[in-house]
Order: sequence, then structure tokens, then C-alpha cells
Amino acid sequence: MITVYGDYRSGNCYKVQLTLSILGIAHRWFDIDFLAGETHSDAWAARNPARRIPLLELHDGRTLVESNAIVHYLARGSALLPADDFDHARMLQWMFFEQHRHEPSLSVARLIHWYHGDPADRHDELIARQEGARQALDIMEQTLAEDAWLAGERMSLADIALFAHTHIADQAGVPLWGWPRVTEWCARIEQCPGFVPMQQVSGIGDTIDPYP
Amino acid sequence: MITVYGDYRSGNCYKVQLTLSILGIAHRWFDIDFLAGETHSDAWAARNPARRIPLLELHDGRTLVESNAIVHYLARGSALLPADDFDHARMLQWMFFEQHRHEPSLSVARLIHWYHGDPADRHDELIARQEGARQALDIMEQTLAEDAWLAGERMSLADIALFAHTHIADQAGVPLWGWPRVTEWCARIEQCPGFVPMQQVSGIGDTIDPYP
Repeated sequence: MITVYGDYRSGNCYKVQLTLSILGIAHRWFDIDFLAGETHSDAWAARNPARRIPLLELHDGRTLVESNAIVHYLARGSALLPADDFDHARMLQWMFFEQHRHEPSLSVARLIHWYHGDPADRHDELIARQEGARQALDIMEQTLAEDAWLAGERMSLADIALFAHTHIADQAGVPLWGWPRVTEWCARIEQCPGFVPMQQVSGIGDTIDPYP
Repeated sequence: MITVYGDYRSGNCYKVQLTLSILGIAHRWFDIDFLAGETHSDAWAARNPARRIPLLELHDGRTLVESNAIVHYLARGSALLPADDFDHARMLQWMFFEQHRHEPSLSVARLIHWYHGDPADRHDELIARQEGARQALDIMEQTLAEDAWLAGERMSLADIALFAHTHIADQAGVPLWGWPRVTEWCARIEQCPGFVPMQQVSGIGDTIDPYP
């Protein structure tokens, strides 16, 4: 059985949780509390030098990091990967956009606003990240005004990857009122068979010491 | 014939140039001068709302952005894409790492240091980006101490994607002296059949007005 090391409150980990749920893949989940600094421990660095979550461990011990690479691996052979080469490329285009422009804006703004309570010494950074988030949402809105899904005729990993931090944009101080097509798209994803909402608490997964 | 809109001095555009050269793919290249602000024009935004280069245009007019998505599309069916599913996932892992951690550090540090001449008001930002670059190079060094290539038994798109900004790290003020395995890996890539060095000037490509 595969094992995931992650935190249900992390948008990047939620992509993996949502993909596993939609595809009905059996797995074990170990909680790594990123707010308590567990990802920065030396024990964790031995597993993942980049000190990040999520991490996927196969039954033979091989590991994979980077949320979008993990979901691409999990979804092989499924309808979440477009069969058409160009649609697949468009999917990857959105997933790279997500890691370069969307997630760095929304996830950091969320950390500052939701979890750290807007400390004064990070105010300028929060404003800049929120502005980056609005630009990313504008780009999504433009595409979703024409298409129901980001890449191709049906839901793909692009939608899962972008949904993770988009649907909780209000936690980053960026409520979605100004992006009606993005809001409708979020609702479409929530109707998908196998959909599971993002957890707002940690400690639901297995808590056996993940550092042998 | 396919068309690329890009700037030979951009690391992200160089990935596309290098992939096209290694695979021997006929194409037309239009120069977009990013240092002169051409990517921020309204005319360019009409082609790419994200206002970035490179952009790939197919013969039928469909377009693709995000350098790593473009090279993945160009390389379909070639040996630059690992046939093994797990190796392919590892390749994507490095390419997402590149867009999230590596490129934002090295490309911005290079812009501040090499092209803008270290202005005092961006000193703190330069230092932070250079530190991010060193952390990214440390992670690469650790993998390359064990393996010749980043993903699998031969060169893949992961190597091309990471090579683009790594081999010119000195232009970001981060000379590669401290990373011997990374330096050797750069030399291996330069020996690859079809390798083309990065141009340090603009205006080599076609200059016909790309804004119809």
C-alpha cells in the first residue's frame, strides 16, 4: 500500500488527498504538522531534503515529492489525465502556472493572514502576495469564461491543482466575489464523484511516529 | 511549422531553444525583447494574459505557454521523456521544483545582478534570492552525488529545465565553485548531441512584427 506524509490543512497536501479520493486509491496517511515546524526537523530533511510536504512513499520505499508530480503519478491511466497530447500539455501549463504564480501568492498570503493573524511586520508582503493572487485569479477567470474546465472537455489534474488554494482564497484575505466564473468552477468541482472537502484540522491521519 | 515567441537571453526561453535543437525540430523564432518591456505590452497580453515568454504557436494557431509545459509537448515520443512511469514522475518532480524554488531564485537574482547592476534598493531582495538559489543547488548536488542525471538513467527534460538557469548561476552572483557535482553535470549536458549554447544577445531571431 502507498503512504502519504502530509498535513490536511496544506493546500498542496489537499491536492493529493482529493486525487486519492476521486480515484478511490487505498493508502495510509501520516500527519506531519507543518504549523508546528515538523517539516523543518532534521529527521524530515533525511526523507525530503527540500523539507516540504506532501511526500508519497511507494510500497517498495521509493519516494516522490512535489504535489503536482505526485498527483500526476497517482492519476496515470485515469480520466484525470487528458488523452489528447495538446490537452495534456494545457493541463501541465496550468499546473506549472500554479506552482510559479498561483500557489506562491495564495498559500503565503493564507499563512500570513489565516494562521499568523496579519502581523504588522509582514503587512507589505501580504499586500504583494494578495495582488499576485488577484492577477492569477484574473487569468483563470478569463479562461473559465469560455471553458468549463481548465484543460480539455472534462475535469483534469489542472482543475484539482488550481482548486486547492483557490477555493480557500478567502483565508488569504482574497474573497472570490469578484471572480464569478471561478466561483462557478469551484462549485462544479465540488459536485465531482469522490469529492472530499478540505479538512481544517490536523491529527486525523495516522499518528504513528513517521521517523524510524 | 511551429513558431516560438521568445528571447534568447531568457533562461525559460532557452529551455525551448535547447529542446528544439536536441530534437532537431524545424521552427520559426520571433524575438520578444523582455528587457525592453515587450512582454508587458497590451498587444502581448492579448496573446498571453500571463504576459510572459516563451509562447509556442502551433500551425493551426493554438498556443501554449509555460516553458516546462512547452518542452514536455515538444518532447512527446522522444527519449527526453522517460518511458518508465516512476522516472517520468521524478522528471516532473524536478520540473515543478524548478518553477517553484529554483527559477524564482536564480532568474530574479540574475535580473537584479546581471541586467540591473545591483541597485541598492533591491539589495535585500538579491541576498534573499541568492540564498534561495544556494539551497536549490544544495538539493541538486545531493542527488547528483549519486546519479548522473536528475531522473532516470539518461538525460531528460528535468536536466534541460534545471540546466537553463543553473549553468549561468554566476550571472546571478552565485558562481558554481561550491557545487562540484552540479558543475560536472553541466559539462555532461554540454556534450549532448544537438546541444546549443545559450545566446547572450537578443535580435538573432526573426524580427517581423509578431503583433498582427
